[in-house]
Parts: sequence; structure tokens; C-alpha cells
Amino acid sequence: MSIISKVLSLENPAFCGYVTYSSLLVLKMMIMPLLTVKQRRKFGVPISPEDCAIYNRKSLRLHEEVERIRRAHLNDLENIPIFFIAGAFYLLTNPSPRTALNLFRTYTIARYCHTFVYAVVVIPQPARAISWSIGFAITGYMLFRTIRHFKAF
Amino acid sequence: MSIISKVLSLENPAFCGYVTYSSLLVLKMMIMPLLTVKQRRKFGVPISPEDCAIYNRKSLRLHEEVERIRRAHLNDLENIPIFFIAGAFYLLTNPSPRTALNLFRTYTIARYCHTFVYAVVVIPQPARAISWSIGFAITGYMLFRTIRHFKAF
Amino acid sequence: MSIISKVLSLENPAFCGYVTYSSLLVLKMMIMPLLTVKQRRKFGVPISPEDCAIYNRKSLRLHEEVERIRRAHLNDLENIPIFFIAGAFYLLTNPSPRTALNLFRTYTIARYCHTFVYAVVVIPQPARAISWSIGFAITGYMLFRTIRHFKAF
Repeated sequence: MSIISKVLSLENPAFCGYVTYSSLLVLKMMIMPLLTVKQRRKFGVPISPEDCAIYNRKSLRLHEEVERIRRAHLNDLENIPIFFIAGAFYLLTNPSPRTALNLFRTYTIARYCHTFVYAVVVIPQPARAISWSIGFAITGYMLFRTIRHFKAF
Repeated sequence: MSIISKVLSLENPAFCGYVTYSSLLVLKMMIMPLLTVKQRRKFGVPISPEDCAIYNRKSLRLHEEVERIRRAHLNDLENIPIFFIAGAFYLLTNPSPRTALNLFRTYTIARYCHTFVYAVVVIPQPARAISWSIGFAITGYMLFRTIRHFKAF
Repeated sequence: MSIISKVLSLENPAFCGYVTYSSLLVLKMMIMPLLTVKQRRKFGVPISPEDCAIYNRKSLRLHEEVERIRRAHLNDLENIPIFFIAGAFYLLTNPSPRTALNLFRTYTIARYCHTFVYAVVVIPQPARAISWSIGFAITGYMLFRTIRHFKAF
């Protein structure tokens, strides 16, 4: 049996963990637009001219409580898709399932914390910097392991 | 033969449908920068100072007809990559090919409609809200099925 | 052996090249936030009110030298994730490893050039337009090959 069939297998706990934690990260990203809409309604901030009537406004404007959630969401877009890629590649290096699961778990917790301290209850720095850095470091580690393992330039 | 080799197979119509419809969604995303450039040229809206000469402008400015397309594009970035992930994971739960194909098809149509009513011919709400919600609900359903199937926390 | 097991194999140089070059693209995307933070520190531009104290500022503001890097980063988000998808699908069409590797290599170089001329040393147009177009054309070609090969509507 090839290494890839061994890795991409429902018997491989690292692979099942990858699918589970990546799903929880997609779930997190799906919560962001709901939070944004909630704040748009609360503060009356339409995103597009054709929405002004719904929000009882005459023109578009920015509001910090909406922008904050949009920044957190953009930060997700900058970080989570590259985790999906780096995590899948890292599985192909045949890591110990225990290490892999712990990395996926820690990454997921760090990203949930990042959103919480950024967009739900604002907690002073370095809370956001730390949670962001943990995710960044894990992605970087998985990437480093992948490049060292493949090196097919 | 393992479930994964059965799923990731050119004989599996759900997998082939996933590839085809995901490709059509990538194609949709590739149309967005072309639309943006078209509007930038039409209304003379450079994105960066070094482009001002091309557009015969002295400084940067925003224009609603450009921002509209950028919002539609950003909405794609928020929604379509997580569909790629959720769709691939959903295939691993071994769904009926018929259901899977219908979900992929509906999602793709909903996203094309979303872009059309947002950025091509502006149609009053709730056109955009409905097309967005259909895509969101399909991603959510596939995610729910995946998490329930894997549960490898 | 199925085509998919043949493609997704560590013996397939096209697959190993895909993993290697995609990793280099993830690496490129991971450099962007570091460049952004460097410019934020240099020009004193906080992104969120709770960061104002760190930057010794009373309120948020925009700065062209920060926005430039954010535009380059957003351009990555618009282009590189769809390359990951289109590249993976293209592998399933069983291309010649030599062609595939050259496409991945050229795409990666073009995207590194794009960031360089956009956000590191600003080089007048059409430098940025050309590097962007090369990446766009490669993604489009791989997508065209995929859709023609699968056609499972």
C-alpha cells in the first residue's frame, strides 16, 4: 500500500483529526458574516446602496463595530485557507498522529481565541497578537516540514 | 478497496461533479478581476499611485461602480474557498451521488446569481440575500454531515 | 491501479512539484503580514483602536505604504487559493510531469515577482500587470484542461 493511501485513510487518526478540526475552522468562518450582519443591523450600517432602504439610511458609511468584525474575518481569510493547504501537505510527510492532532487542535483553539479577543469581547493586546502568532507558527512549522520532505523543485 | 479510493475515483459521479462545479466556481472568481479592470478603465479609477498615469488621474479615489464589484469579489473569497473544503470533506462521508451533484449544482447556480444581482445588473434585495443564503445553507449542511461523520476531536 | 492513485503518489514528479511549489506560495503569503507589520511600525499606523497605545497614536488612519502591502496581500488571496484548486484538479487530468512542473514553477516565479514589483520595490507598470497576467493565464489554462477532461455537469 502506498504512503498516500495510508495517509488518506479513515483509519488514520491524523487524517480524521485534520477533517474534523478543519471543519470546525470552516464553521468559525461561517459565524463571521452572521456577526457582521448582526452589527450592521444594530448600528444601521448598510454595505451597498440598494440596502440603504432596509437600514433606513440615505448613504453608506463605515462604523468601527462593523469594521472590527470585517477585520477579524479578513484575518481568517489570510490565515485559515493556507492552514488547510499546509495541514494537508503536512499529513503527506507521515507525522506522528499524536503530534499532528495536537497541532490541529492548538491551531483551532488559537483561531477561535483570535476571533473572540478581536471581535466579540475586545481584550487589550497582546491577546490578539499571541493568538495570531500561535496559528502562524503552527502553519510555518507544517510548511517547513513539508518543504524539507518534498524538495521537488 | 478503501472508502477513500472509492470516493476519489473517476468512476464516482459525485467526485467528477465536485471537480466540474468547483472549476466553474474558480472560473466565476476569475471573471471578477476582469470586471473590476473594465470598471476601473470606464470610470478612471486607479488602484495604486503608479497606475495614475495610465488612468490620467493625479490621485487615488474610490468609485461606487468599482467598489461594488470588489465587494462581490470579497464575498466570493469569504464563501467559495470554504465550499471547496466542505465539499471535499462531504464527499468523504460517502453521500448519494445524486444528492451530492444536486448540492454542487445548486451552490454553483446560487453563486453565479449572487454575482449577477450584486455586480452585473443590480437587482433590489432580497435577491442578493437569497442567493447568498442558499450557498451558505449548502456549505453548512455539508459541514454538519462531515462533523457528524468524523467526530475525531 | 486507478488513475488517482497513480497521480497522488510520491513517485509522480508532477504531484511532488505541486506540493513543493504550493508550499513556496504559502510561504510567500506568510511573508505578507510580516511586511505589513513592519510598515505599520515604521509609519505608526495601527489597524485597530486597541493598538493605538502601542503605536503612540490617538486614532486610526490609512497610510499608502501600508495599503500597498495590503493590496498585494489581497491580490494573493484572490489568486493563489484558486491556483491550489486548479492545480490539484489539473493533476487529475494526468498531464505530462514536465509540462506540469514548468507551469507550477512559472506560476510561483510570477507571483513572487508580482509581490516584489507591487510591495517591495515599486516598479512602474506594466511590470505588475505582466506578472499578474502570467499567473492568471496559467490558472486559466489548467482550469480549461480540467473542465474539458471532466465535463460532469
